[in-house]
Amino acid sequence: MNFGVVLKVLGSLLLFEAALLAFPLGIAWYYQEDIMPFILSILALLVVALPMVKFFKSSGRLRAKEGLTIVAGGWVLVSFFGALPFYISGSIPSFVDAFFETVSGLTTTGATIIDDIEVLPKGILFWRSLTHWLGGMGILVLTLAILPAIGVGGFQIFKAESPGPVADKITPKMKSTAKILYTVYLGMTVLQTSLLYMAGLSLYDALVHTFGTVGTGGFSTRNDSIGAFNVNVQIIIAVFMIASGVNFSLYYDIYKGRFKQVIKNSELKLYLSIILVAIILLTISLNGTVYQSLTESIRYAGFQVGAIITTTGYDTADFDAWPTFSKAILFSLMFVGGSAGSTAGGIKVIRLLILGKLVKREIQKILHPNAYIPVKINNRSISPDVTASVTSFFFLYLLLLVAGTLLISLEGIGLVSSFSSVAASLGNIGPGFELVGPAQTYSHFSAASKMLFSLLMLFGRLELFTVFILLMPSFWKDK
Amino acid sequence: MNFGVVLKVLGSLLLFEAALLAFPLGIAWYYQEDIMPFILSILALLVVALPMVKFFKSSGRLRAKEGLTIVAGGWVLVSFFGALPFYISGSIPSFVDAFFETVSGLTTTGATIIDDIEVLPKGILFWRSLTHWLGGMGILVLTLAILPAIGVGGFQIFKAESPGPVADKITPKMKSTAKILYTVYLGMTVLQTSLLYMAGLSLYDALVHTFGTVGTGGFSTRNDSIGAFNVNVQIIIAVFMIASGVNFSLYYDIYKGRFKQVIKNSELKLYLSIILVAIILLTISLNGTVYQSLTESIRYAGFQVGAIITTTGYDTADFDAWPTFSKAILFSLMFVGGSAGSTAGGIKVIRLLILGKLVKREIQKILHPNAYIPVKINNRSISPDVTASVTSFFFLYLLLLVAGTLLISLEGIGLVSSFSSVAASLGNIGPGFELVGPAQTYSHFSAASKMLFSLLMLFGRLELFTVFILLMPSFWKDK
Repeated sequence: MNFGVVLKVLGSLLLFEAALLAFPLGIAWYYQEDIMPFILSILALLVVALPMVKFFKSSGRLRAKEGLTIVAGGWVLVSFFGALPFYISGSIPSFVDAFFETVSGLTTTGATIIDDIEVLPKGILFWRSLTHWLGGMGILVLTLAILPAIGVGGFQIFKAESPGPVADKITPKMKSTAKILYTVYLGMTVLQTSLLYMAGLSLYDALVHTFGTVGTGGFSTRNDSIGAFNVNVQIIIAVFMIASGVNFSLYYDIYKGRFKQVIKNSELKLYLSIILVAIILLTISLNGTVYQSLTESIRYAGFQVGAIITTTGYDTADFDAWPTFSKAILFSLMFVGGSAGSTAGGIKVIRLLILGKLVKREIQKILHPNAYIPVKINNRSISPDVTASVTSFFFLYLLLLVAGTLLISLEGIGLVSSFSSVAASLGNIGPGFELVGPAQTYSHFSAASKMLFSLLMLFGRLELFTVFILLMPSFWKDK
Repeated sequence: MNFGVVLKVLGSLLLFEAALLAFPLGIAWYYQEDIMPFILSILALLVVALPMVKFFKSSGRLRAKEGLTIVAGGWVLVSFFGALPFYISGSIPSFVDAFFETVSGLTTTGATIIDDIEVLPKGILFWRSLTHWLGGMGILVLTLAILPAIGVGGFQIFKAESPGPVADKITPKMKSTAKILYTVYLGMTVLQTSLLYMAGLSLYDALVHTFGTVGTGGFSTRNDSIGAFNVNVQIIIAVFMIASGVNFSLYYDIYKGRFKQVIKNSELKLYLSIILVAIILLTISLNGTVYQSLTESIRYAGFQVGAIITTTGYDTADFDAWPTFSKAILFSLMFVGGSAGSTAGGIKVIRLLILGKLVKREIQKILHPNAYIPVKINNRSISPDVTASVTSFFFLYLLLLVAGTLLISLEGIGLVSSFSSVAASLGNIGPGFELVGPAQTYSHFSAASKMLFSLLMLFGRLELFTVFILLMPSFWKDK
């Protein structure tokens, strides 16, 4: 392991985090709140990061090992220091809770341990939601895009931080790709903030909820989440949630006029089809039972389907009180997730598409045992390496789900609460059912469980293997 | 499609079922019960089957299509006619219920719609449990082993009816392999019946519960299942359940003195390891909370782990009332199942082993991107065809689980009841949790749900694809 390059990059990352803390500091200053928590956090970051950047050199190779260590280590460090403002300000008195909240923010999970969100200072809540925006597209990718060349090839980092089985290189240069993705992201952010402002939100609320939406996070400033706002706000957020679950490179294709490529994209078609079918089924289930008018049923159904499939986790109603069929639909969507190359978490549509194609091929093979049948996505053959990687991801995902549920069930809280809290953490969703339903928080869990949830959120956001591999002793043996 | 050969084989199968009904008829006659239900059922079978055997010829090819149709069609027909004794006798007044019960028996699921089992006649209950024995190793395989050559190659049928990703040909001749498997099966049956008899059961009870054990079914003659019997009986049944979840060809290896092959078998090792770990964890969970002595905790834990992992579904206690951690362990075991080539259902250990090896290889590949790493089981490389088939099975299994849960949730019965009833049907287990817990039955479901459960049980027993492929319109188009 080349620790020099690892520490150098991690140092740059922490310096960047110190700079980012200037935003909530500005908000706190503007609203005349206590700015000391931010000053102290920035100082702590500088004390640790400056020597790292100064004393280590970014020379030498950046292999897979270094890339993985930078990404996993980077996320843990940024979460650790990102928790300081919550802890120092006393907004979250326990450090484990503050760490949980920061990991939840950065991984765009949106699970919270704060029972009454409305009493907290605006600067603190701004930082809380900004972590969604930073984590959504990848904070290391952002570092790559903004900072001057740090002397190392970025593809390993980009690959480990990007969601989806295949990292989409839009341009041959990683830095350019990162810039394009962040330009799209920034564009969506500006557009949604403007629309929310026009719909009646304050600029502050518009910004905070845009971070939660485009990052598919789910943190709000209200205890009632998006249910606290008017119908127009709800519709804007629903549309932007679904748009944030689309592969961002498709927006670049649209910008470049490659419409055919977008319309024919298999993952996009399946993603939108699942959303449409789920909304129809959920509307049927809600209409006449929970809501009396069809319009109302469609609105609640559409919002919740968008919020769960994109792993955002916002809500406009307590869906845990809906009929079992409604809950079963939402529960199923927890295992779909958004598209690869979006800010959404979960298993992701492209993986389910590839697995579905494997099933289809298997059936053809039974009838034609000697035929060679390739698996094709967007008219391109998928290599056996990719299908094996998708299969491994899927199985490991379910293994972690089972292992997590077994551990959380030690809290003695019922099967649905145990299972759905683990699924909501690993899938970076946030709310689940029963004790972690939309009207509840994660505050009542033990510190050990909160650390486990944090680990599961990191597993989910970094697509399992990046974290899993670092936990194996053999990884650290230099050959 | 060569319908001639399909109808000829199905006719022979039904004649064979008519002959088998002589057993419960004899029991009913011995206990001076009404024998008319059996006489009428046998007559119905003869009326349908004799023309089929007489008028159709078994000439022509038996391709995959014919093999699959024979197996899936055979199972549905045998279930249909097997339901007649229950229906005609009035023991089960609804035909849908009688069909459910027979499918549950033949697929060795053991789910029941009978709320009070102890009032039913002995002949009827004997037939009910005999279906476990017939379905366990495959009734078509039995037909192949016993009947004189029916003029068609049996491998297609054997493959479709045998559990596991690769049909194990012990000898080059299918008929000899079928005979060996049934000899082992018969040997276990005789041994367990003798032991249960010595432990104090009547010969009738010993036989009925042996059928339920070696077939990994789970039907009993008592409302309290195996909890109604003494400790020795419970231990004998636990041991034979676990033994019935082992690949039967390994018993043939032992008989042939190939001990090394048995000890080194990867699937056996993983199967026994999972059982051991699960028993230890369950004992820890039960000791001091549900049971006061360690011996008692181990006994209840061992029995229930064996009953669930082998998909038998017997119980000695209401495990739905155990702590959440205990339930989470048993719930997880519902997705394991026994070994390939055993009578147990579920996903099966060998598939999980192959999927686990894929994950391991993926991790090695991340660190050594250019290395060629084969997936090996028992020191033999697994072909990509087999891994693709295992992956497809696993994904289709979960898809059916989700689809089934969505449909059953329309009953409005809670997520755990919906999900666990579907998992227990598809995995051929029987009891689940909450409304389908060990102290409950499937009687309260609607007729539509009971038919869906029956379909899921057939899906599970015939390893998904055999049934799935027949439900696709393209299968029936002759090219």
